Formats: sequence, C-alpha cells, structure tokens
Amino acid sequence: MTALDVHRAAMVGRFQPIHKGHLKAMLDILAHFDELVVVLGSAQLSHELDNPFTAGERMVMIRLALSHAGIGPDRYWIVPVPDAPMHTVWVPMVLAYCPRFKVVFSNEPLTKRLFEEAGFEVRPIPFFERHLYSATEVRRRMLSGEPWEELVPEPVAEYIKAIGGVERLRALAKTDKVVR
Amino acid sequence: MTALDVHRAAMVGRFQPIHKGHLKAMLDILAHFDELVVVLGSAQLSHELDNPFTAGERMVMIRLALSHAGIGPDRYWIVPVPDAPMHTVWVPMVLAYCPRFKVVFSNEPLTKRLFEEAGFEVRPIPFFERHLYSATEVRRRMLSGEPWEELVPEPVAEYIKAIGGVERLRALAKTDKVVR
Amino acid sequence: MTALDVHRAAMVGRFQPIHKGHLKAMLDILAHFDELVVVLGSAQLSHELDNPFTAGERMVMIRLALSHAGIGPDRYWIVPVPDAPMHTVWVPMVLAYCPRFKVVFSNEPLTKRLFEEAGFEVRPIPFFERHLYSATEVRRRMLSGEPWEELVPEPVAEYIKAIGGVERLRALAKTDKVVR
Amino acid sequence: MTALDVHRAAMVGRFQPIHKGHLKAMLDILAHFDELVVVLGSAQLSHELDNPFTAGERMVMIRLALSHAGIGPDRYWIVPVPDAPMHTVWVPMVLAYCPRFKVVFSNEPLTKRLFEEAGFEVRPIPFFERHLYSATEVRRRMLSGEPWEELVPEPVAEYIKAIGGVERLRALAKTDKVVR
Amino acid sequence: MTALDVHRAAMVGRFQPIHKGHLKAMLDILAHFDELVVVLGSAQLSHELDNPFTAGERMVMIRLALSHAGIGPDRYWIVPVPDAPMHTVWVPMVLAYCPRFKVVFSNEPLTKRLFEEAGFEVRPIPFFERHLYSATEVRRRMLSGEPWEELVPEPVAEYIKAIGGVERLRALAKTDKVVR
Amino acid sequence: MTALDVHRAAMVGRFQPIHKGHLKAMLDILAHFDELVVVLGSAQLSHELDNPFTAGERMVMIRLALSHAGIGPDRYWIVPVPDAPMHTVWVPMVLAYCPRFKVVFSNEPLTKRLFEEAGFEVRPIPFFERHLYSATEVRRRMLSGEPWEELVPEPVAEYIKAIGGVERLRALAKTDKVVR
Repeated sequence: MTALDVHRAAMVGRFQPIHKGHLKAMLDILAHFDELVVVLGSAQLSHELDNPFTAGERMVMIRLALSHAGIGPDRYWIVPVPDAPMHTVWVPMVLAYCPRFKVVFSNEPLTKRLFEEAGFEVRPIPFFERHLYSATEVRRRMLSGEPWEELVPEPVAEYIKAIGGVERLRALAKTDKVVR
Repeated sequence: MTALDVHRAAMVGRFQPIHKGHLKAMLDILAHFDELVVVLGSAQLSHELDNPFTAGERMVMIRLALSHAGIGPDRYWIVPVPDAPMHTVWVPMVLAYCPRFKVVFSNEPLTKRLFEEAGFEVRPIPFFERHLYSATEVRRRMLSGEPWEELVPEPVAEYIKAIGGVERLRALAKTDKVVR
Repeated sequence: MTALDVHRAAMVGRFQPIHKGHLKAMLDILAHFDELVVVLGSAQLSHELDNPFTAGERMVMIRLALSHAGIGPDRYWIVPVPDAPMHTVWVPMVLAYCPRFKVVFSNEPLTKRLFEEAGFEVRPIPFFERHLYSATEVRRRMLSGEPWEELVPEPVAEYIKAIGGVERLRALAKTDKVVR
Repeated sequence: MTALDVHRAAMVGRFQPIHKGHLKAMLDILAHFDELVVVLGSAQLSHELDNPFTAGERMVMIRLALSHAGIGPDRYWIVPVPDAPMHTVWVPMVLAYCPRFKVVFSNEPLTKRLFEEAGFEVRPIPFFERHLYSATEVRRRMLSGEPWEELVPEPVAEYIKAIGGVERLRALAKTDKVVR
Repeated sequence: MTALDVHRAAMVGRFQPIHKGHLKAMLDILAHFDELVVVLGSAQLSHELDNPFTAGERMVMIRLALSHAGIGPDRYWIVPVPDAPMHTVWVPMVLAYCPRFKVVFSNEPLTKRLFEEAGFEVRPIPFFERHLYSATEVRRRMLSGEPWEELVPEPVAEYIKAIGGVERLRALAKTDKVVR
Repeated sequence: MTALDVHRAAMVGRFQPIHKGHLKAMLDILAHFDELVVVLGSAQLSHELDNPFTAGERMVMIRLALSHAGIGPDRYWIVPVPDAPMHTVWVPMVLAYCPRFKVVFSNEPLTKRLFEEAGFEVRPIPFFERHLYSATEVRRRMLSGEPWEELVPEPVAEYIKAIGGVERLRALAKTDKVVR
C-alpha cells in the first residue's frame, strides 16, 4: 500500500474542548477507516467564551484523549485550519491543509452543505447522549462551577486544570469582545 | 510525567520539500528531546516555484520521511502555520498554534531574531552538506531534469512522483505570479 | 457623447435575491438616467441564512430580471464588490470597482451616510409595498414553505429552483456560522 | 534619564468618545507615572452605533480633554491600534505600535487576561460613577436627545458638535451593518 | 433554453489595458460559445506601473472595445475578482463570483494549472502577434512616449486619454511601492 | 480659534529611521503651519532590512528628534497607519486615522498622485543633501559598519544604540523574508 492508497476519513470540529462524545465518534470512524484526519476548525480563535483554548492546546488534548483510548498518532492527523474569508473557499482551504481524504463526518449544517456541494460523501456523526456530551455543556459547567470533568477524557481534564483553563474561561466571562 | 512536563524542541521550516538534510537534523534533535514540534511555515503557500507543495502534501512527506527513519508520530507534531501579517506577531502566532516548546532550532536569520527577542533559546541546525541538501537544490534539479531523488528520503520521492509534483513544478515554471 | 459623459446612477444592495421591489426601483431609475450601476454588495458572502446566493448567482438573477422587464445589459452594469475592512474605505472601494456615477440610490442608513460624507447626492428608493417586497420576506417564505415565487420576477424564481436555492437555504437553517 | 528609563503606563480603550470618567482615570495614572500611553483600540472602526468616531477624531478629542485638564502632550502618547486577527497576537501588536510601557490599566476582562498572560502587571481603573460616566451612556443620550454634554469635557462636546457627531450617530441609528 | 443551459467560456486576464490581441481572442471565443465571462483578475490593483487602471476603468474599456467590434453586452459578462490569499482558493473564488462556465481560455501557466487541477478544460488563447499586442508593450510605449494608440481599439485609446491614463502612468514611473 | 480651525499640514514617510533631512523638512513645514501631522506609514512593518524599527520605536525617535530641535509635541501629531489592501483606499484610510489636514508634503510619486487624485494640495519636500540624508543611506552605513550617527539627530542615535537597533539590522542582513 502506498501513501496515496490510504483510506482516510475527516472529522471537522472546533474541539473546545474535546469531550467523550467526540472521542467515541473518532473511535467509531477509526473502526472503519485506515486513518482519521481531525480538522481543527477556527484554529485562529482562542480566549473567547465559546473558543477558550488555542489550537496548540486543543491539539495536545486530542492526542491525550486518543492515546488514553489506545489509539496512537500513526492512525490520525490533527490539522489546525483557520477560518476562511468566504464560505465558498473553506472546503478548498481545508483540502490544501490536509492529507487527502474521501469521506467527511459532520453534523454541522454548513459544513455538510459545503462538502456536499464540493462532491464529497458526508456522513452524520452518531453522537452519544448529545445533550450531555457537548463542548457547550462542558464550558457551561466550567463557568457555573458544576462538575465538568466527567464529560471529558480523564487526561484532558487534568491538562485543562494544569494550564489553568477554567480560570481563563471565568476571566473572560464578562467580556463581549469577539474577533471580527 | 504529565503533558506539561514534556521536553519539546521546535524546528521551523517550509519543507518544500523535506530533504535528507532536514531529516538528519530532526533525528539529531530527537536524540536530545522528548518530542519535536515541526513548525510547517508559510502553510498557505503552494503552486509557486519556491513553494510548490500544499501544507497537506508537506505533512504527508514529513511523516513518510520520519517513519522511514524509524521515528513514529508519537515523537513529534507537525503544525501548519500560515504567514503572519506583521513579523512581530509571528512568534505569538506560532505559540498559539503549537504545543508548548522550550528550544527552537533554526538557521534563518529572521526566525532566529524573532524567537530571541521573545526570550527563547535558539540553536543552529548543523546541516549536513548544505549546498547539496537544500530544498532550493531539489527544486532546481526537478526543473532542469537532473536527478533529484537522491536528495530526499525514498518514500518522499515516491510520493512526489505519485502526486505529479515534478509536473506541477514545471507547469508553473513560466509564471511570475505570487500571492501578495 | 463620449464614455465620460454618460449620466449614470448607482443602486446599492445585496440582492439576496433580487425581488419585484428591486426591479421596480431599477426601472424607475433607468427612466431618468442613461445607465444604472448595480453595486452588488457583500459579494464575498454566500451560504448564510441572510446571504444564501453567490455573487455569480446574483448577477445571473439580476440580468434575468432586467431582461424579463425589457431592459438589455447595455443599459446597466452589475459590479460585485466585497465588504471593506473599514467603513471609511468602503465608498472609495466601490468607486474603484465601478464605472463613474453621479447619483446614488439607497435607503440603507450607513450607505447613505457614507456616500453623503463623500460628497455624493443620495436619493431614497421609493420601494413599492416594502413589507411584502423584501429579500428578508422572500427568504422567510422559502424557509417556512410558504409561496415566495410571486415576490420575485418569474425567471428569477425558475433560476432559483434550477440551482436548488431553496434546498440550500433550508440546509443552512440550523447553522449559526457566519464569516467574520 | 534616557528615553528607555521613562516610567510609562498604558490605558486601553476605544474612547467612543472620551468622557469625564476616562479623563479622571488618566489624571490619576499621570500622578504616578512619567508618561501615559493611550492605546486607542479598534482604530479602524467608525460609523457604527457603538463606534461612531474615526481614530483621527478620537485622537483630537483626547488631546482636547487632556489640554483642558492642564496636561500637555509631552506627558502622553496617543496610539491608534487596529483590531488583531487573533486574540493571542493582540498584545504583541500593541507592543509593536507603542512606546514601551510597564503597567497596564484596564477593566476589560479580555484585555486584562491577555496582558496578564503576557506577563504584564494589570491594574483596575477606579472609574468614578461608572453608570454615569460611560461612553455607552453618552451615545445613548445622543441618540435619545437627552443632555450628554455634561458627561464629556467641555471642548470635547464642542468638537463633537462642530464635526456633526450627533447627527452622524442618529443617521446610523437604523443600520444593522457592522464590519466583520 | 434556460439560464442553466447557456454554453459559456471564461477568459482570464488583468486587461491593463485591453488591447487588440485581447479583443481578437474574445471574438474568436464568442464565435464558438453563447456567452463569454471576462474574469477581470487582480481587481483590487490600480495605480501601479504594471496595474495602472482601476477595475471600474477596465470594465468600461472592455465594453467600449467589444461594442466597437459589434458585440453587445448580452453576449458577455465582466466580473471583477480580487486576488486570493492562497493560490488553491483562487479558482473556487472565481467560480463564486462568476456565472457558471465550462471552458477556460488562458495562456498563463498558474491560471492553467489551477483550473486543470480543478477539473476544467483549459484552452490556449491563440494571440495574434503577441510581441506587439501585449499590455506590457502598451504600457512601455505610454511611458516612453512612443505611439501606443494603434495597439488598442480606438474608443479605448480615447477613453484612456479622457481619464488622463498616460499622465497617471508617468506619474507613477518612479515609485517602487506595491501593495503586499 | 477652535479645534477645527487649526491649519495643519501632513508629512508622509516610513521614518526608518528619522534622519536630519526629515527633521529639517519638519521644521520648515512647522514654520508655515500651526501643526504637523506626521503620517507614520507602513506602521505594521518592522524586522526587515528596509524596515527595521517598529512603529512604537519610530514614534519615540520622532519625538526625540523634534524635542531636541525645540519643538514640543503640542505642535505635531504622530499617527501610525498600516498599509492599505488597495492603493485607492490608502488616502481615505490615512484621513480616518489622522486629525484633519489641508496640505500634504511628499516626494514619493504614488503618495503624491493618490493625494492629488483625492483633491489635496501636495507640495514637494525640499530635502537638504538628499544623497546623504536618506534612511537608505543610514541603514547602509549601519550594515557596513561605517559611521551613521552623524546622519541622525543625536538623541535618535543614542536611542537606536540603547535598543540594539544596529545589532537587529545586522541580524536580519541575510534573510530574504518579507511580509506579503
């Protein structure tokens, strides 16, 4: 098998932060594909209530989560991709940043539509207990002081604590500034 | 050891394409550090005479080269980083995109200076036979029809051929267009 | 009469999509000016709930609408103009993209103000039954499944159906992503 | 004392427009530091309801306010800085645009956090009667026709009237356009 | 025939300015296609030695040239497209700005390559006496004071004189500033 | 006299670094105008061979030079302005960043032309011994080790030494990277 024959699928997300729902979906995809391309979207964003973590921090968390689940980095790629200036150029931008893939997993309506218009097969991510395992819920709990650790893989929780992630999120709680 | 204790070094380059000199330097660094962060600079550039390959293609080539040398992706990170709008924000942009590192390897004067002004330890890359093992020389040979394959790791040469890389470079040979 | 003597007026809008109110205003303007410059604003936007159509699709719709009303393209120009990074440079950007004009028709407060500060004569667009003939109403009906076709010129309705425009809008209905 | 030894503090704001609360804070800071660097944030914004004035107009107002209070421009710098494309590069961008400073005064959560992560000492601005002396309140009164002049230094009120500032704000009142 | 069935070809250029070689090629294409899409590249550039004219001025010149040759604007579209931030997103950007087309005419190596990689049929432009009929030659003659008028269609020469185009080019002759 | 009646002139430059020729021109202008607006162009550039100093460093140098000549900052404004994405929007961008002025002093062909097309009076800067007093010559001498200090006002030379400016320029001497 050569480098061009690898059967890859992509999963697109912001992973702010990666949670157990993301991880389960990744494992499901890896059961059917040689390699997974994790497209780390909105890579340029951080220090916002909806986007607290940098791309570098999110990359570390994704590797920690997958290693914890027994998946080595030879089975996947993590590719930070900044936002595009036009929706119509986002897919070609992703393609230029990533190793080639054939199938895309996404539940986000715009992502699905753009990849479909570009001729890709897009499959839904069968998220497990989505109301619970969502990054929005993780951030909400972090802000309110409720237990959030159970929603993310254990080493991800440790890492977030080690970098002062909850403190950062709370420090930002009152700002209304967003990058535009 | 936790995720924060990892002893990482970064190596910055455009890797257009990765050659044996790059690979030797990576192996040298990996002999002294836990992990290597390969900062894939000018990630947005491709389809230029000096920058023929996309970030995705360069990522694949780097993994092929390191795997061929017996280094698994658990020992390194490849992080595509687009150019910055101001030189003074390039280092903080790299830091936001990458896992944390403590030492930077570079021979490029601007890269060295910017990291030094930011307080980093910067060490030179002891390139082996630099007149020979340079990406400029690889691209020159591709254009002129001279043998270039010996300058890059074997699976990189195969991959470049499989994606029609030499043909692309030659097709671009007469353009004078650059992104600005 | 030379090319510089042409008496032109400009009408600014996003035309997402062009409707019968737009068309009536264009015909009114063309009754008093030699040529109309249709400034197709936010040209880079598409695939959003408020901006579903690409600039190219909007150009085709505008020509279809005007041809249907008996106006040939020798009477007007359609000029796609992307958004500006600062409001104060938007008027000079429009001027650089367009054939010269002397009068601007607009009801949008910012557009009016910016052209007035630049010394232009700005006149209101006497929209006919504005609550009905508005692009917002057209998109609302498309989403809710109500009849929208009667609000746009007949060939525009046909074109939107032919390119799957309603399907696209509905596919985007649940996203909250915007270009920023 | 050389140019490098000057003891400077920075105060960050948009100053849309400068009001008596801002001015009082500036005087407080100048009582303890040699020089004040007024970082005029979001310099590219104007002609919006929340950002009606251009950077040039805001610079004039700040100098008028400080001169009126007996502070000559040899005690401060006004530095217009446009928004950054990523929050993580905003502090280094400010540093590149400004004379060096050691302490930052700000109450804005994101500004505080970003400067703290960059290793700066950040102190709160002890605003006097904040519900009253706020730029939001000034703009609200301008729009509603209530007396706003008492909230800003006298020459600032005169200047705003001379440039037709209130008229501009009201002209923009119905737009929903923002730069993005 | 519906709007979607139109058989269109695109011709890509900067048209700084349009000359008789361009015009002849357009007429050749129009002999075989229903409509021509004139992609006005680098639309944002003007006031440079290699790019003296604005997009609006270039649009007027193209219509003047085609009208002079008996071709009405119902047979073509002129679409100004600004440069892309990455070569790999330029083709999708052009596609979003333009009415759909199936064939591209270009002699520029990068343009050809990018459209070919996107799956388009690209055909060469059989330029007539290219050493003579080139925009570079027109600009060279304008600068040196040699007769340039014979290289462009008659109304284009008149228009350039009417807007003071030669004077502008000469005024820029000593600058070394380019947009970047 | 009110703030709107001030008779101001602008002088545009990059001031990399300010030299005695610049200073003499500033003094000449200030002999005829109430206030001078120093437009600090290409504010975003630094760490390049042709643009070694940051906007903040250049602001400090300009104030040092003028203070040394007995001119206090109540007579002038220093306004850093980043480059524009289109030449045609550069003048309006400068106008938005600066206090209003009526006359522009410049010898740079593009700057002159753009301000003239915008309706401004542009006057030449009568530089004194231009071959000697030029920023290019200052940087050339810094690189070659020749005495450069005599070309700049004394406190500017001291400041450049204090911030390690010559060392920075030499460190960059071998790079070929520019922001684009």
